[in-house]
Amino acid sequence: MSMMTDMMQSMSKSDMAMDMDMTAMQECMEACSAAAMAATMCSDADLGDGMARCSSMCANMADVATTMMRMMMRPMGMDMSAMKAMMGACMAMGEACAAECRSHSEMAEHCRICMMACEAMVASCSKMMASMA
Amino acid sequence: MSMMTDMMQSMSKSDMAMDMDMTAMQECMEACSAAAMAATMCSDADLGDGMARCSSMCANMADVATTMMRMMMRPMGMDMSAMKAMMGACMAMGEACAAECRSHSEMAEHCRICMMACEAMVASCSKMMASMA
Amino acid sequence: MSMMTDMMQSMSKSDMAMDMDMTAMQECMEACSAAAMAATMCSDADLGDGMARCSSMCANMADVATTMMRMMMRPMGMDMSAMKAMMGACMAMGEACAAECRSHSEMAEHCRICMMACEAMVASCSKMMASMA
Amino acid sequence: MSMMTDMMQSMSKSDMAMDMDMTAMQECMEACSAAAMAATMCSDADLGDGMARCSSMCANMADVATTMMRMMMRPMGMDMSAMKAMMGACMAMGEACAAECRSHSEMAEHCRICMMACEAMVASCSKMMASMA
Repeated sequence: MSMMTDMMQSMSKSDMAMDMDMTAMQECMEACSAAAMAATMCSDADLGDGMARCSSMCANMADVATTMMRMMMRPMGMDMSAMKAMMGACMAMGEACAAECRSHSEMAEHCRICMMACEAMVASCSKMMASMA
Repeated sequence: MSMMTDMMQSMSKSDMAMDMDMTAMQECMEACSAAAMAATMCSDADLGDGMARCSSMCANMADVATTMMRMMMRPMGMDMSAMKAMMGACMAMGEACAAECRSHSEMAEHCRICMMACEAMVASCSKMMASMA
Repeated sequence: MSMMTDMMQSMSKSDMAMDMDMTAMQECMEACSAAAMAATMCSDADLGDGMARCSSMCANMADVATTMMRMMMRPMGMDMSAMKAMMGACMAMGEACAAECRSHSEMAEHCRICMMACEAMVASCSKMMASMA
Repeated sequence: MSMMTDMMQSMSKSDMAMDMDMTAMQECMEACSAAAMAATMCSDADLGDGMARCSSMCANMADVATTMMRMMMRPMGMDMSAMKAMMGACMAMGEACAAECRSHSEMAEHCRICMMACEAMVASCSKMMASMA
């Protein structure tokens, strides 16, 4: 995704409200984007299968991951405590969604893919959290 | 907002994944909606005034409040730990945004309105959190 | 919704990129907000009922109405042709969603409420379109 | 982006409400995602530069592109007329945003990147439109 690499290089570090690990942040943005996509598709694919809870959780996951990604893309207004709390919410949602999708992963490929995207996102958020400590 | 009252009455309690205080939740949804609207308008109004940080924080606030509201509107997939973590993120963001808007509230009416909407939302979320304990 | 009335009064008309009918626009924002809420709740309520198509269309409706509402809340960057095209998309989506929900409205109260919210939104958008001509 | 390729392969064509060109659609989803990201970052980067109109248009672009992408990710509820109208809105918004960003592209790298992402998205949407005719 060279577009995002270019975009992040165009942001001078001095624009940042605080010193962030830009590599961890870009990886985290991309993981959030992938999870948002996978969860949106999984939520829709669940509809015909009668997996109400999975579909609803994936809809939540998509919104949370999109919001998390956007917050990282807005350095101007970055607030450390709001960022950390949202990162925690994104991880909690990612864990809940991955657990739900895992229970359907053997019969539904879209659930397996969504589970993996959620797990990768949780790992990226965890790394990002560590870099903010 | 009788539409939402009607909608919530149409949801049988048994559809809920857990026992929620429906009155507190409806109030909280409406507070999130109001904060999302106020923050979207404040973010845009800030643009001409050179208030970069305020505009960026309001954009974050609008996304976080919209996501929070939507999560409450999806009882099927409600997960207690994700809900609580997101509620915490919404409060942290609301406090940060209210503080930023407060510092401009004397010269900009849209900041004063956004500050009040954020404070009301934080209070509603706080009540909602208490009811989930 | 006095918060929005106050917010819109705080925006001086001179901030607008063009001469908009502010009364029609406020009514339209509120109709979009109501449709977005009703559709989010209807989409989730459909999940247990095996109404895949209705749930998916409502998810689309919620996103389209939220985006339409936000565009009206951002006078700074208002572009007439993008605004009109989006208004057309919002009406097309509203009509499709209302038609789908109408077919379930006798057995599902949430579909009846969502149908009405969509119809009211289409009517408001239509009025808004006329005022932009 | 192999995650999305895998996800789209997991969706059987029979799940689709109509015969879509899946290759064109995946390309279009990815273009919308890239434009949404670029526009979110451009909107924020504009804040310090006093480019009110550009920032506001980019905020609109981000919401429109995210909604367009999500609609393509929900085959269950696909409605041809709503899809085409939204595709038209996405192209109108993409053209307006690209034009605005083009006017700042020599002095601001983030505007140049956003302009290119918008133009690529308009081209993808155009191709997608042709395949839906």
